[in-house]
Amino acid sequence: MRDVLREWRPVVDEAIEELLPRVVDEEYLAAFFGPPTYAYDPEAIQVALADPIWELLDRGGKRWRAVVFLLLVDAFGEDPEEYLPYACIPEILHNGTIIVDDVEDGAEMRRGEAAIHHEFGTDIALNAGNAMYFLPLKVITHDPGDLDAETRLAAYEMLMHELNRTHLGQGMDITWHNEREVDITEAEYLEMCACKTGCLGRIVARLAAIVTGQSDAVEDAVANYAQQMSIAFQIGDDILDVEHSLDQAGEFGKAFGNDIREGKKTLMAIHAVENATPEEAARLEEILWAEDNTDDEIEWALDLYQSTGAVEYARERAQALAERARTHLDGLDLEPEPKDKLAAFTRFVIERDV
Amino acid sequence: MRDVLREWRPVVDEAIEELLPRVVDEEYLAAFFGPPTYAYDPEAIQVALADPIWELLDRGGKRWRAVVFLLLVDAFGEDPEEYLPYACIPEILHNGTIIVDDVEDGAEMRRGEAAIHHEFGTDIALNAGNAMYFLPLKVITHDPGDLDAETRLAAYEMLMHELNRTHLGQGMDITWHNEREVDITEAEYLEMCACKTGCLGRIVARLAAIVTGQSDAVEDAVANYAQQMSIAFQIGDDILDVEHSLDQAGEFGKAFGNDIREGKKTLMAIHAVENATPEEAARLEEILWAEDNTDDEIEWALDLYQSTGAVEYARERAQALAERARTHLDGLDLEPEPKDKLAAFTRFVIERDV
Repeated sequence: MRDVLREWRPVVDEAIEELLPRVVDEEYLAAFFGPPTYAYDPEAIQVALADPIWELLDRGGKRWRAVVFLLLVDAFGEDPEEYLPYACIPEILHNGTIIVDDVEDGAEMRRGEAAIHHEFGTDIALNAGNAMYFLPLKVITHDPGDLDAETRLAAYEMLMHELNRTHLGQGMDITWHNEREVDITEAEYLEMCACKTGCLGRIVARLAAIVTGQSDAVEDAVANYAQQMSIAFQIGDDILDVEHSLDQAGEFGKAFGNDIREGKKTLMAIHAVENATPEEAARLEEILWAEDNTDDEIEWALDLYQSTGAVEYARERAQALAERARTHLDGLDLEPEPKDKLAAFTRFVIERDV
Repeated sequence: MRDVLREWRPVVDEAIEELLPRVVDEEYLAAFFGPPTYAYDPEAIQVALADPIWELLDRGGKRWRAVVFLLLVDAFGEDPEEYLPYACIPEILHNGTIIVDDVEDGAEMRRGEAAIHHEFGTDIALNAGNAMYFLPLKVITHDPGDLDAETRLAAYEMLMHELNRTHLGQGMDITWHNEREVDITEAEYLEMCACKTGCLGRIVARLAAIVTGQSDAVEDAVANYAQQMSIAFQIGDDILDVEHSLDQAGEFGKAFGNDIREGKKTLMAIHAVENATPEEAARLEEILWAEDNTDDEIEWALDLYQSTGAVEYARERAQALAERARTHLDGLDLEPEPKDKLAAFTRFVIERDV
């Protein structure tokens, strides 16, 4: 899987650079955003958009959303190279949400360095993050795939549907963060993941289906594949945080238990509260709620996640979701080689160690 | 003009409430955003979206963007009542930008009370503000006007074009804020206004033209009307800040000179720097750049805006823009009564005193 990602990443970045060059000038601005009414200030737009966006992109990210898009196009029997600008849409959207989420969460770090709002200021960061919500959507208008009007409309309607739900999911997550009690059902938790993380996955899959002219049934099937894989990815992320924490607990100077410190209501937190004694559940809620935690508190919470079987339970749920994600590919008439890679992705998202 | 605004405001708010009720429940969420995959948490979405959004809307705002939209529909000979959901699009977008801009600017107050991010937290505020960028765009998909695919596509492409340019304008403005020197041409300043404020005006006008099926020429003409009126409005806003400041300077306990304290590079600042002595220009730049200003510094800068003729110059520019805005209506075949009101709006935006 890592080979596929490594192979495509420079190609994807080149395509992103076509949409937003590292250095912007009047010619690019007029071509991409339309001619000015009076006069653009390209130097100011360089500082406001190109610099912070490329700073984030150059720090890393696996570009897996773009790669899954390209594998799907390949699986549908079309040439991925021809659809590269569309592959950038979910990738730029995703990186935009990272900048905005970091402001929302008050995050200090991102990809090993200062969060974008710390490096560039909240004003520049937020405007750049929000610009990344709209900039890639111009691809549909610029229409590199020479699509008919119905298809372009379908793409916009799909994007509006999913981007609305993204904000429902983020809203649920934030509200839970801010509440003291862990009073969430598993169905609500999965819905939050389906909206917050899943919708970007759905955009990847549905866009690939739409631009290559697949049937509604195929579009639905790959959307379900991507959504369940994304939820599994999210749960996998939460498990990784706990596992790294268990490895690192007690090691001098290393931060651990980040999700617990942030008060994240993960599937493990929900399962632990449901399966612990009332006293233990209350103490966990107290620890998740507190502004600051001692290392002892974090270790106690991590132990509770293990002793209640919450970590194991979350892993089983993630594996079941990844498995169900694969079954959505089974009924489809896909090219075998990219299909295998798409199936392999569902394992990668929960077996990765970073 | 105030009568027209007063008459329509409750009607517009009722239409907004159709799109986002004050109290959300599962039924609304499933109908508006699509059925859940697992289960929504309507109480969390109430806290995350409905509460902060209605808090801002209920504090005020003239809803002039919605009213101009409805007047244009009326002027095109169509029934405004039939297009109410579309009138909400620019209004919700505008209020979304207010929430986000206040986070970007670190604003304390909004409409006489604590800014939304101070009352609800930065996380809730930003997510709600961003949700307001996408929520109204669902109107095109829900299609209350029973529009054909080409028309809906035209609406989406127009919205993506203008919303992209909004972020260019905001980006230019923020970058200038953060720079010490006032090194901006008048054309660049007008472009910033055309993008930042003008694009929302253009959305108002172009959407009215698109949904009622006007020709490209008519759409262009009303877009220019709205853009120039919006720029005049922005310059008018900046003049109002100076005039209020001149009235209030020296009055005990009243804040004055807000734009100067914030370091805003207004048309007056640009004109003053160009027409002052080099020493005066350097002192003005110093005052605009400083984190804090004494009242004496503010009064000195306000005096410079007057003595260099910058206030008068800005007023003339705003008036000329408002006049040119009116001329764009002249060639069009519009109903006389709403046309008069649309023309009256171009006076209102620069003659208002709040």
